[in-house]
Amino acid sequence: MGKGYHVAVVGATGAVGQQMLKTLEERNFPIEKLSLLSSKRSAGKKVLYKGKEVEVKEAVPQSFEGVQIALFSAGGSVSKELAPEAVKRGAIVIDNTSAFRMDENTPLVVPEVNEEDLKEHNGIIANPNCSTIQMVVALEPIRQTFGLNKVIVSTYQAVSGAGAHAIEELKRQARAILAEEEFTPEILPVSSDEKHYQIAFNAVPQIDKFQDNGYTFEEMKMINETKKIMHMAELEVAATCVRLPVVTGHSESVYVEIDQDNVSSNDIKSLLKDAPGVTLQDDPAQQVYPMPADCVGKNDVFVGRIRQDLDRPNGYHFWVVSDNLLKGAAWNSVQIAESLVKLNLV
Amino acid sequence: MGKGYHVAVVGATGAVGQQMLKTLEERNFPIEKLSLLSSKRSAGKKVLYKGKEVEVKEAVPQSFEGVQIALFSAGGSVSKELAPEAVKRGAIVIDNTSAFRMDENTPLVVPEVNEEDLKEHNGIIANPNCSTIQMVVALEPIRQTFGLNKVIVSTYQAVSGAGAHAIEELKRQARAILAEEEFTPEILPVSSDEKHYQIAFNAVPQIDKFQDNGYTFEEMKMINETKKIMHMAELEVAATCVRLPVVTGHSESVYVEIDQDNVSSNDIKSLLKDAPGVTLQDDPAQQVYPMPADCVGKNDVFVGRIRQDLDRPNGYHFWVVSDNLLKGAAWNSVQIAESLVKLNLV
Repeated sequence: MGKGYHVAVVGATGAVGQQMLKTLEERNFPIEKLSLLSSKRSAGKKVLYKGKEVEVKEAVPQSFEGVQIALFSAGGSVSKELAPEAVKRGAIVIDNTSAFRMDENTPLVVPEVNEEDLKEHNGIIANPNCSTIQMVVALEPIRQTFGLNKVIVSTYQAVSGAGAHAIEELKRQARAILAEEEFTPEILPVSSDEKHYQIAFNAVPQIDKFQDNGYTFEEMKMINETKKIMHMAELEVAATCVRLPVVTGHSESVYVEIDQDNVSSNDIKSLLKDAPGVTLQDDPAQQVYPMPADCVGKNDVFVGRIRQDLDRPNGYHFWVVSDNLLKGAAWNSVQIAESLVKLNLV
Repeated sequence: MGKGYHVAVVGATGAVGQQMLKTLEERNFPIEKLSLLSSKRSAGKKVLYKGKEVEVKEAVPQSFEGVQIALFSAGGSVSKELAPEAVKRGAIVIDNTSAFRMDENTPLVVPEVNEEDLKEHNGIIANPNCSTIQMVVALEPIRQTFGLNKVIVSTYQAVSGAGAHAIEELKRQARAILAEEEFTPEILPVSSDEKHYQIAFNAVPQIDKFQDNGYTFEEMKMINETKKIMHMAELEVAATCVRLPVVTGHSESVYVEIDQDNVSSNDIKSLLKDAPGVTLQDDPAQQVYPMPADCVGKNDVFVGRIRQDLDRPNGYHFWVVSDNLLKGAAWNSVQIAESLVKLNLV
């Protein structure tokens, strides 16, 4: 390992946990000791980190003795139970679940947008929802420079956001349909919900369960988290979230209204070209625009198809794509850890 | 055949042409003589109509002698060349290409919306773009009852809109990816455009070529055709069109602003429940909403996920799904033919 911090990864065997380890490795994050934790079921498994086998242990309160940074991605109930135990033992928790995101004492952080909020932490820092993160990375430079008052987003989300079982289900169904065989949907749209639907060669307008107001929890996460991260309670945000037969890479069709009428598409493009965490891919004449198949394994948020609304001079449309397991989860979490180090908060 | 009209189908061997024949058969359209026409390449093929083999002949100007109704779906250049020849010989042309849609002397018709426009025809009647048709069927009852001033749509479009070769390409790529084999994209997003991209397990934000203003022709079709069909030059319409790995069934995430502030989601649901050509599928508590996999082979437009915007009381979001080969093409064309008969225009 080497000189650095005692880091714990909770949910180390899951889809996001595995990406967290890969990202810590790639970023060469300063780790002196690494504790890999999981549910009882996965405990005992061996996982590779920098070429060495590390045994995964069952996560219990005592697992966090001496831990300085704990990355949680093992579901909301695990975070609710064990994150406070980790904090009690002196760890800073970076939580990738929705358990604490809207808690008013918990900063909800995308480093490109509100890194400063880390200074207000009380032990737990929440990592936002994947579809929120990639959108606010694209929105923040626009807000800073031109002001922002309305956002309408329709998402095109990959199945890996629903975990490894959902990826398997998509592949299993695709194989069955191509072979003209029968199959029974079992996981998507929401494994704990009553009905399950075909995802292969389909589009399902439900991610997470429905609230009484007709919006899904995923849609409400995008709405509420965007306002919290950007410190704009008054920002108008609307979302429609849709699951697609894509393995990895969320896409978003975003419409915004800015505070100025005299801006051009080229102004927005120039701005995003140099924005932190953004790669501009916008050249229609050359058929250059972001696509999920191209973003896999990359940390950036890709933006393209930027064009002015034909009716409202302050309206802009664009297309945002990112790897939902990286910037949407693992990379944003590790990036928060890097910011904590940089700001001397750990 | 029986008592009725002399009907010609141009492009009889294509994906839409085949659906036209199936629809004419199912509707028991009064046909006395049926001329199946195609390019030279497909001439000589035999096609079944009501159990009888009909030989497909090469479409030439003389093919339209005696024809009363000619359904065209063989590409814009064929329509431009032969539709006037058919009209010259006394036929009424129902054209499924974009050749005449924005021509000011040509009615652009969705019978649920503007059937009366058929009375102004000058020989050619244009069938709108597939993604436009399903949207205006859902919008028109709202416009009539509550007024309509703004529409923002993001589409989720199936590959069959790009023809039979695109369906084969999607399946071929999906098989290759599942088998971890190499493949070369050849058709999508636009076969005549320079670059071709993976469509299986991907989302491609380009349908048709790009215009200089950064919008694709598909997006401009949705914008311009919607205004023309609804007779609302002043309606604000914006579109983002995206191709998905779905074989058949276009979906649309639609946001509208109506002229009234005191309407509820239930008012919109009640209205659409009884609207012509619409099937309401909207019960979030029971996970009931439209999906492309469920709409295939059905003539209706399916609407669900209707909910009020959380910021603007006159804003509504909903989800519209329809079989792009049927209501989006073949069924709307045959429906126009039925309207012509009903209105004594043929």
